[in-house]
Amino acid sequence: MAKVKKQPRPKALPPKGFRDYFGSEVTERKHMLDQIAAVYHRYGFEALESPAVETVEALGKFLPDVDRPNEGVFAWQDEDDSWMALRYDLTAPLARVYAQHRNDLPTPYRRYAMGPVWRNEKPGPGRYRQFYQCDADTVGTASVAADAEICAMLSDTLEHVGIPRGDYVVRVNNRKVLNGVLEAMGLPEEAGVRDDVLRTIDKFDKVGEEGVRQLLTKGRLDASGAYIDGVGLSEDQAEPVIAFLTSKAADAAKTFENLRGAVGTSRIGAEGIAELEQIGDLLAAGGYGAERIEIDPSVVRGLGYYTGPVFEAELTFEIFDEKGRKRQFGSVSGGGRYDDLVKRFTGQPVPATGVSIGVDRLLAALREKGRIRSTATGPVVVTVMDKARMADYQAMVAELRNAGIRAEVYLGNPKNFGNQLKYADMRRSPVAIIQGGDEAERGVVQVKDLVLGAKIAESATLEEWKAQPAQTEVPLGDMVAEVRRILAGSEG
Amino acid sequence: MAKVKKQPRPKALPPKGFRDYFGSEVTERKHMLDQIAAVYHRYGFEALESPAVETVEALGKFLPDVDRPNEGVFAWQDEDDSWMALRYDLTAPLARVYAQHRNDLPTPYRRYAMGPVWRNEKPGPGRYRQFYQCDADTVGTASVAADAEICAMLSDTLEHVGIPRGDYVVRVNNRKVLNGVLEAMGLPEEAGVRDDVLRTIDKFDKVGEEGVRQLLTKGRLDASGAYIDGVGLSEDQAEPVIAFLTSKAADAAKTFENLRGAVGTSRIGAEGIAELEQIGDLLAAGGYGAERIEIDPSVVRGLGYYTGPVFEAELTFEIFDEKGRKRQFGSVSGGGRYDDLVKRFTGQPVPATGVSIGVDRLLAALREKGRIRSTATGPVVVTVMDKARMADYQAMVAELRNAGIRAEVYLGNPKNFGNQLKYADMRRSPVAIIQGGDEAERGVVQVKDLVLGAKIAESATLEEWKAQPAQTEVPLGDMVAEVRRILAGSEG
Repeated sequence: MAKVKKQPRPKALPPKGFRDYFGSEVTERKHMLDQIAAVYHRYGFEALESPAVETVEALGKFLPDVDRPNEGVFAWQDEDDSWMALRYDLTAPLARVYAQHRNDLPTPYRRYAMGPVWRNEKPGPGRYRQFYQCDADTVGTASVAADAEICAMLSDTLEHVGIPRGDYVVRVNNRKVLNGVLEAMGLPEEAGVRDDVLRTIDKFDKVGEEGVRQLLTKGRLDASGAYIDGVGLSEDQAEPVIAFLTSKAADAAKTFENLRGAVGTSRIGAEGIAELEQIGDLLAAGGYGAERIEIDPSVVRGLGYYTGPVFEAELTFEIFDEKGRKRQFGSVSGGGRYDDLVKRFTGQPVPATGVSIGVDRLLAALREKGRIRSTATGPVVVTVMDKARMADYQAMVAELRNAGIRAEVYLGNPKNFGNQLKYADMRRSPVAIIQGGDEAERGVVQVKDLVLGAKIAESATLEEWKAQPAQTEVPLGDMVAEVRRILAGSEG
Repeated sequence: MAKVKKQPRPKALPPKGFRDYFGSEVTERKHMLDQIAAVYHRYGFEALESPAVETVEALGKFLPDVDRPNEGVFAWQDEDDSWMALRYDLTAPLARVYAQHRNDLPTPYRRYAMGPVWRNEKPGPGRYRQFYQCDADTVGTASVAADAEICAMLSDTLEHVGIPRGDYVVRVNNRKVLNGVLEAMGLPEEAGVRDDVLRTIDKFDKVGEEGVRQLLTKGRLDASGAYIDGVGLSEDQAEPVIAFLTSKAADAAKTFENLRGAVGTSRIGAEGIAELEQIGDLLAAGGYGAERIEIDPSVVRGLGYYTGPVFEAELTFEIFDEKGRKRQFGSVSGGGRYDDLVKRFTGQPVPATGVSIGVDRLLAALREKGRIRSTATGPVVVTVMDKARMADYQAMVAELRNAGIRAEVYLGNPKNFGNQLKYADMRRSPVAIIQGGDEAERGVVQVKDLVLGAKIAESATLEEWKAQPAQTEVPLGDMVAEVRRILAGSEG
C-alpha cells in the first residue's frame, strides 16, 4: 500500500440516492417484515437468504461484449476480471439458487426472501437506489393452485399487517387470455406489431379505453399537445383488445363470458380463461370472495413480463397526494407466473409463480392510516447529580433493566442538570430518576413522570407547577414499582 | 441497449466466497439477532440502518491517486466517476452517520446496527466474503461508564442468547496502560520501534510469555525452524512489557498493583489503570462480578486499533476442533474505545466506544452446545388423491391455516401417492391429511402422524404395521382438533 497523502476532510454524506434509517423507522419495518414472514411461514414457505452479490452472468440482462455492463445495476470486476453485481431484485437470485440446488430442494419449492435490492438509477424524491423487497415464490409446479395460493396468501398478509378487508383488493388477470386476444386479432406471433400492442395496453391505466383505442389505430393527441403515432390497426382489429380490457362485469360468470367473446376461437385464450375460472373456484373454496380477490382483465401491469396469471394488490382507500388532491393509494404488491426464468441455467423449463411486496410503500400506507404500532417510547433516564456516585446510578439502572424496563444512565456531561432533562426529552423518555446527595442519605429517589410533566408544563399555573404532582419521592426499594406504575399509566 | 447475442448458459453458482442460507439457517440467525436487539434496546440503544453502499472517501483507508481502490473492499465507480464501495464493517458508516446528523442526534448517541458486511478477501473454508455483524456503540461521551455499560450489556447479551454464566468471560484491558508501559520503557513516541513492540505483543496469544520475551530482544526460532528477528531491546527494556502482559492476578487489587509496577511513573499509564479500576467498580455496583467480566491485561487483540479500554468476550467451554483436538471455543465478540473516528469528518475529536458480536461464530457455538431452539418442523401436508377435487383440499388447508397451523396442499404431480409422502418426509412434515373419494363421500379424513409413523416404520412388526396406530380417521369437522392433538404430542 502506497503512503497515504494528506487529504481534505471527507464529506459526511452517503452516496447519492442512499439514505439512513433511524430508530422506529428500522423497528417498524422490521416488525412488518416479521408479520409478513409469519404468514408466509404458515403457508409452508421456507426462508432463503442469498447473497447481495451475484455474478453478472447469473443475473442476466447483460452484454459480454461491452466494457461495462449497462445501467440499471451496480457492477464491478472481481480479481479474475469476471463481473459481479448487486442484485436488482429477489427473483433473479432465486432462479440461480433453484438451478444450483434443485436436486436437494423439495418439488415444488416454496420459498420466501426479504431484504434490500439495489438499482443503479437516477435517484429522485422518494426514489432510492437501495430499497426493500419481500417475495414469496413457488417453483416447480405448473398448477394454477399455486397461483391461487399466492393470491390467498397476499390477501391474508395484507390483513395481518393491518389493512382491513374492504381497504384492499387483489386483482387477477392472465397473460394467456391476452395472447388469445392477439391470436384472435390475427396478428403474427413474431411481428413487432405484437410488442406495439403490448406497449399500448400498458398505458391503459393512464389513457383509458378511448386512449387505447386511438393509440391502437390512428394515433392520439396527448395532454402536452404532442401527437403520438398509433399502431395503425383498423377499428375492427382493435376491438378485441378493448373488449378484453373492459370485460370486467359485476359478476365473474359475466366477465368470463365477455372474455370468451374477446378471444374467439383461440385455444390459448380458452386455456387462459379456464385457468382464471379455476383460480376463482379454488379461492372461493378457501373462503376468499370477490371482495378480497377478484378476476379483473383490466390489470395490465406485468402482462409483458409474465407468462400466465398475473396479480396485483391495490389499496383502495383514498389519500391526499403531495398536491392536496384525493386519490386512491394504489398498488403495493404485484406478481405472476414466469415459466422461463430457470431455463436460462438448465435448459429445461421450470414453471414458477410468485409475488413481491413493496415493503416501503406498504409501510407508508399503514402510517397514512395511523395503523403503525408506536415503538417510539424512549428509555427511563437515570440522571447524574454527582459524578462521583456513578456506581450508585449504575446499580439503579441495572435494577431497572433486570426488571425488564428499558433504562439508561445519563452519560453526557452532568454539570448542567437542565441538559439532562433536555436529553431525556429528546429521547422521549417517559420517566427520569433523580437522586442527589440529600436523597441518597435518606435512601430515596425522585421519580419524575415526564409525560405528565410535559402536559402540566403546557397548561399549569405557577401554583400547580409548584405542587409538582408529576414527581414523586419513593424509597429506593420502591423505585421499580413506581416506574412500573407510571409506565402502565402512560400506555393507557 | 445493443442487441443481445446468443450466449452459452450461465453457471448456476454464486460468486466465489458467497453462499446461500436455507430455512432454519435463516430463521435461527434471525431469532438470535432479535434476542440481541432486545437486550440492546433495553439498554436504551436505538436502531440504525445505514445503506450497504458508502462513498469510498467516507469509508476511508483509500487512496485518491491510484486507479482502483486497494484490496479489502468491493468498490466501483459511479456515473460521475466517484468511487463507491460496500461497507466492510458497521463502525465506519456509524462515523459518517454521526458526523452528518450530529445536530439532530442526542448526545451521547447510543445506537445498534446489524446486517451483512463485505470483504474483498480471498475466500477459504468457512471464510465468506459476506457475513453478519451486530454492533452497539455509544458516541459522544468520554466517560468510562460508557465502556462499563458496553461490557455489562455484552455479558447480558451472551446470557440472553443462551450462553450460561461460567461458559463465557468478558475480558477488559486498556490501551492507555500499554502506552504507559511503552513510556516507562523510554521508547520514543514516534519511532518505528513502538510499532514493532505492538506487533510483537499481538503474538502473545500464540507464542506466550517466553516467546514475546525472545521476539522483543534477540529473536526466536519458530516452529517451522525459521529464525524470526527480534526487536532488539535489552532484557531490561523488555521487562515492563512482560510485566504488563502477565500482570493478571487472582484478585483485581493485586492485578492493579502489578500494573502500577509495569507503568512506573507514566502519567498516561496511571490514567489507564484508574480507568480500569473505575470500570471494575461500576460493574461491581451493577452486580457484574469477575466470573462474568474481569480485568485482564493479557487481552491484546485490538490494542493497536483502540485508544482506551478494549474488551473481548470469550466462550470458555471446550469443543473438539476439526482435527479432533480439544480446545476452548474462543472469542465471539470484541470492541473498545476509538476516539478519532468521527474527527476525520468534522475535525473535532468525538469520543466513542462500542462492541461487535460475530453472529455466525456465536450461532456456531450455540449449535455446538445444542442450545438452538429447533425451528425445523415442516408444515402439515394435505395430500391430493383426486386432482379434480383441488378446491376441497384448498378449503381444508385454509381451515388449518386459519386455526394458526402451518399447512400446505401438495402442489406437485399427484399421480404417484408415494411421491407425496416422500415430499412430506423431505419437508419434515409432522402430519399428512388424506382424503380419497370414499372418505369424501363419508365426510371424513385420514390424519397420519408422520413422526410416530417413522418411529413405527423403524421397528414395527408386520402386525404392528398393519394396525397403523399412526393413522386415524376422523370426521372432517374434527380435523383441526386431531392435528392439534398430534402436534401437541410431537412437541413434548
